[in-house]
This record gives sequence, structure tokens and C-alpha cells, in this order.
Amino acid sequence: MRLDAPLSGESALIERIAARAEVAMPLPKGFAVQQAIGDDTAVIQANSHTLLWTSDMLVEGVHFRLGWIDPASLGWKALAVNLSDIAAMGGVPVGALLSIALTPEATGAWLDAFLEGWRECAQTYGVALLGGDTNRASQITVDVSVLGMVEGAPVLRKGARAGDWMLVTGALGASRAGLEALLAGESSRVDLTPHFRPVPRLQAGQLARQLGATAMMDLSDGLAADLPKLLRASGKGAVVHLAQLPVHPEAIRWAHYRGIEPALFAYAGGEDYELLITAPPDVAQQLLRQLPQQAGVPITAIGEVIDAPELWLEYPDGRRESPTLTGWDHFR
Amino acid sequence: MRLDAPLSGESALIERIAARAEVAMPLPKGFAVQQAIGDDTAVIQANSHTLLWTSDMLVEGVHFRLGWIDPASLGWKALAVNLSDIAAMGGVPVGALLSIALTPEATGAWLDAFLEGWRECAQTYGVALLGGDTNRASQITVDVSVLGMVEGAPVLRKGARAGDWMLVTGALGASRAGLEALLAGESSRVDLTPHFRPVPRLQAGQLARQLGATAMMDLSDGLAADLPKLLRASGKGAVVHLAQLPVHPEAIRWAHYRGIEPALFAYAGGEDYELLITAPPDVAQQLLRQLPQQAGVPITAIGEVIDAPELWLEYPDGRRESPTLTGWDHFR
Repeated sequence: MRLDAPLSGESALIERIAARAEVAMPLPKGFAVQQAIGDDTAVIQANSHTLLWTSDMLVEGVHFRLGWIDPASLGWKALAVNLSDIAAMGGVPVGALLSIALTPEATGAWLDAFLEGWRECAQTYGVALLGGDTNRASQITVDVSVLGMVEGAPVLRKGARAGDWMLVTGALGASRAGLEALLAGESSRVDLTPHFRPVPRLQAGQLARQLGATAMMDLSDGLAADLPKLLRASGKGAVVHLAQLPVHPEAIRWAHYRGIEPALFAYAGGEDYELLITAPPDVAQQLLRQLPQQAGVPITAIGEVIDAPELWLEYPDGRRESPTLTGWDHFR
Repeated sequence: MRLDAPLSGESALIERIAARAEVAMPLPKGFAVQQAIGDDTAVIQANSHTLLWTSDMLVEGVHFRLGWIDPASLGWKALAVNLSDIAAMGGVPVGALLSIALTPEATGAWLDAFLEGWRECAQTYGVALLGGDTNRASQITVDVSVLGMVEGAPVLRKGARAGDWMLVTGALGASRAGLEALLAGESSRVDLTPHFRPVPRLQAGQLARQLGATAMMDLSDGLAADLPKLLRASGKGAVVHLAQLPVHPEAIRWAHYRGIEPALFAYAGGEDYELLITAPPDVAQQLLRQLPQQAGVPITAIGEVIDAPELWLEYPDGRRESPTLTGWDHFR
């Protein structure tokens, strides 16, 4: 896979928005923008600390279907996916805004259950709801904005260096297995929890930042779609060792049922919300030791960063292939 | 109008969200929440400065109709209404996030025109686009989040004191006249600019804060709906002198055409995005002198704050009435 090819779909749309709407602006004294469009999270230097600022929108019929996901899980997920963006920079959440457009039927028990799931996530990760907006609509839309901070520098996508190891937290593929099972009407075949209740890796992200990770992002669109974003931002390439990918047991079961190689299924993934981390070998080894101990989060080395703008998948027999697999793209 | 009665509609919904989703959370060191749900804008003390954080969602078919508003005006408006929330605290904008759900037909020329209007507003008021989210949907939804800051204390809704004067910037009613004309299919009768291109009163808000305004808010739902919010937050009441209301010429024309008393039409209003300000008489007199000179914004004294939790409209003949008029409520 060439990493310097033109973009398509959602990425192209974002480029277009950036080109047309971005304007260079003087910020208030003490404030400076370090990262704007081009990452999931904006980074703003604000006097002595750094602000992280992200938003994610979930649209009924696109990101979720009401008959599939229960409202409490949706409330959890709407907040969790934003926290995952803060985690991916090694940040600490400050608070959240919730903007929600509701159909008339959703203003009662549905909303209560949604808020119950939201609160469960908010309490687990220590995030205050600070405001937002409520509206009516013919299609439920939830847009959540989270503000976070770091003392010092956040970890961006663009810091990967040739020779760095690539690592991922947790295990991949279970959320996509859940989605595919729902789409196929066979949801009893897999555990839907990973799809409904993603876990933001806040503590792991903070630890990775402290130990010296060079680049980081959360896997929202799947490794196949997200790894190229990190590599493009860093101006680097990578070799991924397929045999080393941590494949979730639910993903293995579903991939076998569908007759797909589990590692390729996990590589495609989608909505894993695990962290993809690059770090020099010594830091990587510390991460492999300390993340499971101190954050209770499994972590696995899956490949290396290379200088050429190319992406290679290495099979167990040593054969290398340039992947054509891609992850989720809402506009494709 | 009693100001201590139970809430209904959107206000009740927001209360419900606050009751169910709000959790007391320890914030990062140096950070403290000063204002959360209950205002349009969250206020966060962040070391040496104060952050202002707001979001506003516009839904196709609810806040706008595609056949009525041109996409460039919608782009302007989506940003301007958020800047108005920052203005209402006397703040300076830092940047914006744009989350947009698009129908397939809207990803081309429609989006380009939307972004052109956005950029026009962004350049006028010095606001950088720092990120966001793009999605597809069957109904266009735009959710904008703006971060602002003040050095020192922002002006909140809750600071009004008995004896304060009440003032409003600009003139009221023109946006509602535009909306009603559109609804009636008689849009050629009024100038739609005030409805399509609201002007955030950033400079006026900053000046009002510096001079010592005690409470402030922007008039998004109309004076009839918003004034009670400010008074409830402050635990006060007010007398409004109808004859003193600054009624926009377009509102006068439309009100006459519809056979409504123009001052009452302007009092109901909606989407004026002018500032409602309270201040002790000496500060109020400074505001009346300096706002037109220094910010180029007209300002008018319209009444006084009183201690009793009651709202009175005073007619030119001295007769007082408790208003039953209300402004916009998306859930009524």
C-alpha cells in the first residue's frame, strides 16, 4: 500500500473542509494551536498547560440502529468514543458537552436509559457533563464534545520514527464481529459488549505518554484504515506481522464461522478503540512490562516503523503483501 | 409571570438531563468548574485564565429548511450563534469544532457554499476551525462547539441585583419577522438578513464585562423566554418598559402587517442574538455612552431589576401586566 496516494471518501471530505474553511487566526495571548484539522483531537497550548478538544457525532441509521443497541449502551458509547480520543494523546478528561437531537418518542424512557449509560461511563472515567444542547429531529443524533488536558506535550500521530516498534493495546476485531453479526441477523453468535461498550484506554494512554511513546492514535476505523493515517502524518511506513496481531476470541470465532483468516479480520477491524502506539525499542519494552501491571491493559508489539512510505503485511511464512483491505469510511 | 414556577418543555428536559447525568467529578489540578448545565456556556477555571465552552446544534427541518436558507448563510449562522454565547460572557473566541452530518446530495456544491459562509464569519470574528467530525445522514445536522476565554471572571446570568438597569444591544424582532414571513410564504415582505446572518456581539460583550455588567446573556429564544432565565438564575424579578424596547424597523413593518403591537412582537422575538445586560445605574450609563462609540453597537435601557420573583410589562399608560407570552421552545 502506497501511503502518498491521493485520499478518497471521508478523508478527502475532511481535506476539502480544511482547505475551504481553515483561516489563520491570531489566538488570545498565551494561547497557540499545535494541532488542528488532520487529527481527531485539536491541541491548544493554553498558558502553562495543553488543552485537548474533540467531538464525535453518532447518527441513527448510520452509527447505530435503535432496534439493535439499547439506549444505555448508546449513552456509554457516545461518551466513551470521545474519551478514547483524549486517551490517544495521553490526556486527562476535563469535561463533556452533550448535544442531542431527539425524536418525540425518545424524550421519555429512552432518554432516561441513555443518560443512565452516559453516567455509568462518566463515573467510571471521572468526566463531568458541563452543558450542551437539546433539539427535536426525525432522526436521533448525538454529538459529544470532550475537553481534556495534559501537563506538557501530548502524543500526536505524527511522531513515529523509523526503527520504532508498533504496539496495540487489548485485542482487535470483537467490535466488528458484533456489528457483522447484527447485520447478518445472527447476533446470538457473538458477545456484543465490545461493540456496545467500548473501553477508553485513558490510563494506558497516560502511561504511554509518560514513558515516551513517539506517536499514538485510537483505532476507531480499524487498524487497516487508521495505521495509514498515523504513518502518513509521520511521513513513514511500516511492516505489520500478522501472526503477532492480538485477535479477540470473539473475532476468532466469528471469522472462522465466516471462513475468513482471523488475523486479517482483526486487521480490518473497526471501532476497536484500542490504542496504536509507536515507541523506540527500549520504551516499547517498558510499555510491554508496565501497561499490564499498572493499567491492567494487555499490550502487544505488532510490527516496526520503516522509512519508506509503504505499508507491508508480513505473513507467518515471511511472505510480504501490500494490503488492499481498508476499514470503515462513512462516505464510501 | 411568576418566576419560581416549575419548568416545562426544553427547560424541563435540560433539568432532567442535569439530574440524571450530572456527576460531581474531581478535575485535573488547576482546573475548576464555575458553571455547568444551566447556562448556554460552561465556565472552567484553568490555571490563570477562564475557559468558556459552548455548543449549538442546527437540525434540518427544525432550525432551518433547505429551500429557505442558502447554504452560505447557514454556514455563517452555525458559527455566529455559538460566538454569540461567548459574547454573552464577555469572552474572546479561541477556536471552533464543526461536526456535520450530510445527506449524499449535500457533499458537493452545497458543502462548499456552507464552508464559504462559515469562513466569512470566521474571518470577521477571528475564529480558527480546529477540527470536528463528518458523517452521512438522511437529515442535515450541524453541531458547532466553540471554545473561548476571558482573563479574569466572565459575566454570568446569575449576577443581576435589585436596582440594576436592564439593557439590550441592537434592535429586536427582525429575525422573527423573517421567520414568520418565510413560514407564511411572504418572504418578499421583509429583509431576511437578520434571520439568516445574525451578528455575534463579541466586542460589545467584552466591553460590558470590562465596565462591570452584573449579568448577561444572548437573546436566542427571544426576550420573553430568555429574560425569565436570567432572572431565575439571579433569583430576581424585573419590570420591562414596553415603550422603551428597541424594535427593529423590519419587525415594525411585519407586526403592522400582521396587526400585532410591534413592542409585544419584539418582546416575544426569537433568534435576535442581541445581548441582554444588567448593570448598576452608573455602569449602565457608561454602557449607554461607550458601546455605540467603541463597539459601534446601539444599546437601550429597557427596565429595572426588582427583588420579588415576578416579571411585569409596563405599558406607556403606566398599566402593568404579567406577561403570558413566551418565546421559542423546541419541545413545546
